[in-house]
Amino acid sequence: MPELRKDPVTGRWVIISTERRKRPTDFRLESVNIPPDSACPFCDGHEHMTPRELLAHRHNGSGANSPGWDLRVIPNQFPVLRVEGTLDRQGEGLFDKMNGIGAHEVIIESPRHDDTLATMTEAAVEQVLWAFRARVQDLKQDRRFRYIIIFKNHGAAAGAALDHTHSQLIALPIVPREVRDEVEGAKAHFTQKERCVFCDILHQELADGRRLIAETADIVAVAPYAPRFPFETWILPRRHQSLFEDAQRNEYTALARVLVDILGRMNRALRNPPYNLLIHSAPLSEPAGEFYHWHVEIIPKLTKVAGFEWATGFYLNPTAPEEAAQVLRDART
Amino acid sequence: MPELRKDPVTGRWVIISTERRKRPTDFRLESVNIPPDSACPFCDGHEHMTPRELLAHRHNGSGANSPGWDLRVIPNQFPVLRVEGTLDRQGEGLFDKMNGIGAHEVIIESPRHDDTLATMTEAAVEQVLWAFRARVQDLKQDRRFRYIIIFKNHGAAAGAALDHTHSQLIALPIVPREVRDEVEGAKAHFTQKERCVFCDILHQELADGRRLIAETADIVAVAPYAPRFPFETWILPRRHQSLFEDAQRNEYTALARVLVDILGRMNRALRNPPYNLLIHSAPLSEPAGEFYHWHVEIIPKLTKVAGFEWATGFYLNPTAPEEAAQVLRDART
Repeated sequence: MPELRKDPVTGRWVIISTERRKRPTDFRLESVNIPPDSACPFCDGHEHMTPRELLAHRHNGSGANSPGWDLRVIPNQFPVLRVEGTLDRQGEGLFDKMNGIGAHEVIIESPRHDDTLATMTEAAVEQVLWAFRARVQDLKQDRRFRYIIIFKNHGAAAGAALDHTHSQLIALPIVPREVRDEVEGAKAHFTQKERCVFCDILHQELADGRRLIAETADIVAVAPYAPRFPFETWILPRRHQSLFEDAQRNEYTALARVLVDILGRMNRALRNPPYNLLIHSAPLSEPAGEFYHWHVEIIPKLTKVAGFEWATGFYLNPTAPEEAAQVLRDART
Repeated sequence: MPELRKDPVTGRWVIISTERRKRPTDFRLESVNIPPDSACPFCDGHEHMTPRELLAHRHNGSGANSPGWDLRVIPNQFPVLRVEGTLDRQGEGLFDKMNGIGAHEVIIESPRHDDTLATMTEAAVEQVLWAFRARVQDLKQDRRFRYIIIFKNHGAAAGAALDHTHSQLIALPIVPREVRDEVEGAKAHFTQKERCVFCDILHQELADGRRLIAETADIVAVAPYAPRFPFETWILPRRHQSLFEDAQRNEYTALARVLVDILGRMNRALRNPPYNLLIHSAPLSEPAGEFYHWHVEIIPKLTKVAGFEWATGFYLNPTAPEEAAQVLRDART
């Protein structure tokens, strides 16, 4: 019998579709492979092919926009939003619009073309997290921005335009709808129970164990109870904290370790799947400290979103999270 | 300068991304082609390969589940929800679930393997609309169902598992989130203004003309002001009516004509794109007559949804609707 399950944060229902049950080998997997590309603008030595860097981790005293870096942050060459200008909110009869003001940056995570988060050292991945934090701390000074989203598209099927390992950051003048739903859901839970819903989820998942994938003293990885997608994975800090950029040193260290671990498990179980990685953090300048809890979501790209999902926002998931968690638990090195 | 635009129904913001502007020839188009398939279960003569029909339009007095039909409706062989059983709502600690009760049907729109809605006669497409109506009228007797969604996935990239032209119907025990957002948005507009927001949109678009694609005395096709996707098209009846199944004969006739017209324009302008077609109608047994307005949405599948969209619900659209409407207006036969 298929099950309808409700996400306790957003209230979103999903269908866990037992009739269409899919195990890892049943998906038409599109493995990510990274062919050499001598024209890659993100490679060491190609700094002249990108906009000037905003931040870099460098060694040997190398100069800005020259080789000798471990990580670079640059403005996106084709930004979806522009930093310069004013919002200039306007109506057009019934309709509302504003200028597309925002920041759009690229975090080049390694100088090496064929690196991935799954194969980089934990220390190098931790440096990526510190770069995320530094850019958020800089951009949140700008009062035009209401939300900063950091995300990674890995593989063309997950939307990556370039193969070389990178993440993106977009600062928005609006709190977007998915974030609003999550924040409002968490707030409603807190209002009713005086507890953080994510802390409650952690508590229940650790006691239950069926959806638990991996844990350290600081960080826990679970398959959520009502996942939209097969093998969707949430990575949460045990300590309650609403903002990613306010995490502690030991949490970044542990998160880097768990990311390398989980992405390695996915590569083994799902043959190097394309994926999206999303950092969920509270909106800027809104008090959410008590009820929101930052976390990371990883969505392997295994299924196609079709008419039913577009029309309803109701997701069909052919793999139960208990089964996905079991597969990923078993996919240790 | 990119623009942020707000959908007046749902309040959803989108980014019209001028820096990444895409004209029809800029998309990596995946044209749909329909190779012959002697094992297609939806072809005339293969009735034994499907579950028994629920409805058929037959000629020459042919018997049920035998050749001689123009259209068949069958239960989906791999239903995402099951008709038999009770909802059996349950809690699991923090979590909520219920049995996956619902109906999942397939409307086989033609006995010919290589037909498409764009190439069928208007009369045949109108018969498809009447079949949708008949199935909805039957299923809405079942008080377990709160919403019925009818949708079409055309082409593998849009999620179609079989090439032979068909639509699907799913009856759900829950009003899904996207529908809830649309209904609540329309209700809020009505509460404030005592007018239907879709009637207001029609009024403004007909006067403005920049986003108008085609019109008849009964039906209007527009590019919406804040589309999530390039070439997204809404088709609305001029007459206010909340339920698709309560449309009038002349409206089904006009809708069939406009569907064939718009899908033909898309085929010419976008080289037979994959698409999703969605029928938006009001929830069952909720009074929405004054403020909701049924309509059809067509979403050509031209772009990939990536991390940014999953994290934020904020869509990046590289083609302004004014440009899309111009292209489709020019793509007349």
